[in-house]
Amino acid sequence: MALVGSGRKVVGLAPERQHGFYGRDIVSVRQFTRDDLTYIFGVSDEMRSLVRRVGATDLLKGHILANLFYEPSTRTFASFAAAMQRLGGSVIPIHGVQYSSVSKGESLPDTIRTLACYADVIVLRHPDVGASEIAARYSAKPIISAGDGVGEHPTQGLLDLYTIYSELGTIDSLRVAMVGDLKHGRTVHSLARLLRMYQTELTFVSPEILRLPSELKCELEEAGRTVIETDSVESIIGTADIIYVTRVQRERFEDMREYEAVKDCYEITTELMARAKHRMALMHPLPRVGEIHYDVDDDPRAAYFRQMENGMYIRMALLAAVLGKA
Amino acid sequence: MALVGSGRKVVGLAPERQHGFYGRDIVSVRQFTRDDLTYIFGVSDEMRSLVRRVGATDLLKGHILANLFYEPSTRTFASFAAAMQRLGGSVIPIHGVQYSSVSKGESLPDTIRTLACYADVIVLRHPDVGASEIAARYSAKPIISAGDGVGEHPTQGLLDLYTIYSELGTIDSLRVAMVGDLKHGRTVHSLARLLRMYQTELTFVSPEILRLPSELKCELEEAGRTVIETDSVESIIGTADIIYVTRVQRERFEDMREYEAVKDCYEITTELMARAKHRMALMHPLPRVGEIHYDVDDDPRAAYFRQMENGMYIRMALLAAVLGKA
Amino acid sequence: MALVGSGRKVVGLAPERQHGFYGRDIVSVRQFTRDDLTYIFGVSDEMRSLVRRVGATDLLKGHILANLFYEPSTRTFASFAAAMQRLGGSVIPIHGVQYSSVSKGESLPDTIRTLACYADVIVLRHPDVGASEIAARYSAKPIISAGDGVGEHPTQGLLDLYTIYSELGTIDSLRVAMVGDLKHGRTVHSLARLLRMYQTELTFVSPEILRLPSELKCELEEAGRTVIETDSVESIIGTADIIYVTRVQRERFEDMREYEAVKDCYEITTELMARAKHRMALMHPLPRVGEIHYDVDDDPRAAYFRQMENGMYIRMALLAAVLGKA
Repeated sequence: MALVGSGRKVVGLAPERQHGFYGRDIVSVRQFTRDDLTYIFGVSDEMRSLVRRVGATDLLKGHILANLFYEPSTRTFASFAAAMQRLGGSVIPIHGVQYSSVSKGESLPDTIRTLACYADVIVLRHPDVGASEIAARYSAKPIISAGDGVGEHPTQGLLDLYTIYSELGTIDSLRVAMVGDLKHGRTVHSLARLLRMYQTELTFVSPEILRLPSELKCELEEAGRTVIETDSVESIIGTADIIYVTRVQRERFEDMREYEAVKDCYEITTELMARAKHRMALMHPLPRVGEIHYDVDDDPRAAYFRQMENGMYIRMALLAAVLGKA
Repeated sequence: MALVGSGRKVVGLAPERQHGFYGRDIVSVRQFTRDDLTYIFGVSDEMRSLVRRVGATDLLKGHILANLFYEPSTRTFASFAAAMQRLGGSVIPIHGVQYSSVSKGESLPDTIRTLACYADVIVLRHPDVGASEIAARYSAKPIISAGDGVGEHPTQGLLDLYTIYSELGTIDSLRVAMVGDLKHGRTVHSLARLLRMYQTELTFVSPEILRLPSELKCELEEAGRTVIETDSVESIIGTADIIYVTRVQRERFEDMREYEAVKDCYEITTELMARAKHRMALMHPLPRVGEIHYDVDDDPRAAYFRQMENGMYIRMALLAAVLGKA
Repeated sequence: MALVGSGRKVVGLAPERQHGFYGRDIVSVRQFTRDDLTYIFGVSDEMRSLVRRVGATDLLKGHILANLFYEPSTRTFASFAAAMQRLGGSVIPIHGVQYSSVSKGESLPDTIRTLACYADVIVLRHPDVGASEIAARYSAKPIISAGDGVGEHPTQGLLDLYTIYSELGTIDSLRVAMVGDLKHGRTVHSLARLLRMYQTELTFVSPEILRLPSELKCELEEAGRTVIETDSVESIIGTADIIYVTRVQRERFEDMREYEAVKDCYEITTELMARAKHRMALMHPLPRVGEIHYDVDDDPRAAYFRQMENGMYIRMALLAAVLGKA
């Protein structure tokens, strides 16, 4: 165990200065190499096997996770808590923190440095972009981002990529279609950034006004990826290996007629799935509000609940890795 | 351990299709036979003995309970958490959930199916009648209801019945009086439904306007129970083996004069207890607001704190049973 | 383990009736003798050594702490939770309790007696002065106060005193300066009361309107302490062994000009620290809002994060002690 109160970490974000994951912060999908991902997916496979065989282990017995949520997120909170507990560790749940010492005006660095006195690893969900990097700078213990505002949500990106790998056995050579609000959806952005490193063909399906940010599109093209944009789900349904659906949020539209015009184009139904490939996976980061019809849930290609489950294995792998026990 | 993500359960509610409690949901007092209750009370006795002797066990080590509360209830939340922890298991506390993914419009089934990916058993408190049965339908892991709205609160019914059994050594042949708001009190309804299966004489003491629902009265009479209704505590104080007091809620009255007229008739005082049987038990589901005077707390027949404690043993028994470890 | 539901404790507050800490409540700094403090600091030293060597122990395995917070306090909540978990025990987190059974009008004694049925020890944070003593009167299990209103916050006082002892190896013969709002700050009052028992020279640095309450000043003088009052940090910076800074709260001033006039006098900067003794400690109970400049954090004499860490060791020591495992 690292010495408690040993001051600021020397470890930073640059992967080239890191050997392994021990003591490392997880704050951005940009920090990973393909080797890193291969390693984490291998550990995640072992975690899945372990949970299915015996439910839990004592690997992190005596270790404490501070689960610090400045904004609520039931699923991410529960997923990290379960991950730590299945590894034998303990969790300090901290939510509703806006009513607490933070409301007395305390800075994020002071809160983080205090929690780093008590816990061995800190999971941080925060509404402000960049909060995780600030936290990482001041924490003597590893920080794992659980999402900061419209910015990064790296463990979501990892679990999404891991689900593709788990469902189809590979990531290279796939046709991946992302559907819905590609402009605002941070899960789409994180996954696309990770896919940059793989030989995939990417199709982005959205209404005109919700297209992928052009800078991200450029990043993908510069990395040698084929990028196709369309507004039609019909055009990809028969060829995609992965369909990754996200919510088209009503509140993003200024003109409600525009919203009404597009929203139904992006509902995945059993009729649509009848035309999809036999071997493919339908994904969604959840929560869904009508983008995938409930009747589709019984389709074996509906992977979104397995995707949820994978989130726990990825987080188990990351917790074990940053605490030097993977 | 059941496979994580193994899809919807085949197990349902019909007791005749169940052998034992393993994998079963606990959503209604109607699902139990007398044999079921005898079994659970036996396990609860063992849990009490275990807690008093050594405090805790490792029976559910490595198992995780998602304690999902859509509305707050300190005592029920704490009771389930303590039950799981005394069995060596872990708890994911999820409250204030209205501010979370649910507020993004997610359906209860999706929330439940997600949590079933992380936890081994889910305790659900929800304001809507029937929520637990819906949850049970979609969960791959056992659901234990912690109360749904004005509907069922089965573990409260079980702990109340278990308290009668613990205090007096039997349930048959007793004279049970229930006092207070018998119209709205779901604890009264649940306990009455369970008592239907035992040779008890039931007296319902309430103001006219807060009488037991007639359909429940019919159910009891059809089961062969003697049912007496009265508005006078005086009439039962000397003969009852069990007096189960509930709160007369001011807010249920439209005419405040009616409330003022009845409220004091139902306060249990030391004077009243002086006229009660030497061997009897005074119960209350708590919280109380004046129905039982604090001076009565020192009376050895005041069973309401032992009743609280029994809640933990009953919940330990149920958790162990549905996880196949009883 | 004490029998669950064994009724009210016979143990009270009077130290002369106690032998050791087992079963004792921790509700006031007034309850400790110097011998008590020496004992607790010794156990705290062992806890620190244990955490630094191996992170955690199984000393309180199977024991449950109810962490009952009627008002939020991230740091105190997390510190107690971590303390219990590092000792191998479990925690029931109960916050936002105002929305719960308490809102149905339940009394504090009933809530406490209910939780005492489930947990082995109760940590209570409450906005009302005296709440912890009331709780202690009704609880069958030890109560540890985590602060009640403007009243006591005994574990803060203990961790502050322990930090002085840890930083300088002694408490007697020191010059201790307390700076800031000495009128309202309960941490100042608690620490001053503890220092009464040691051969210290106390200097209280505050604006005129935020002076130490005169009754507390009298207590100190009656105990033989030298008490000096000043409004100038300059006057103590070169001689103090301990500088204990607290926040000057804007909201305490009626006249904002008064506030503006004094607030900067009490900011500790690197320039000021350059004139402080080579061997001394700068303390702060945190959160800070400008009283200590961030540049000072790198000064080895800046002890406030070590102070936070000491809070965990003190609470580990107290939990182990009241549960009879120290």
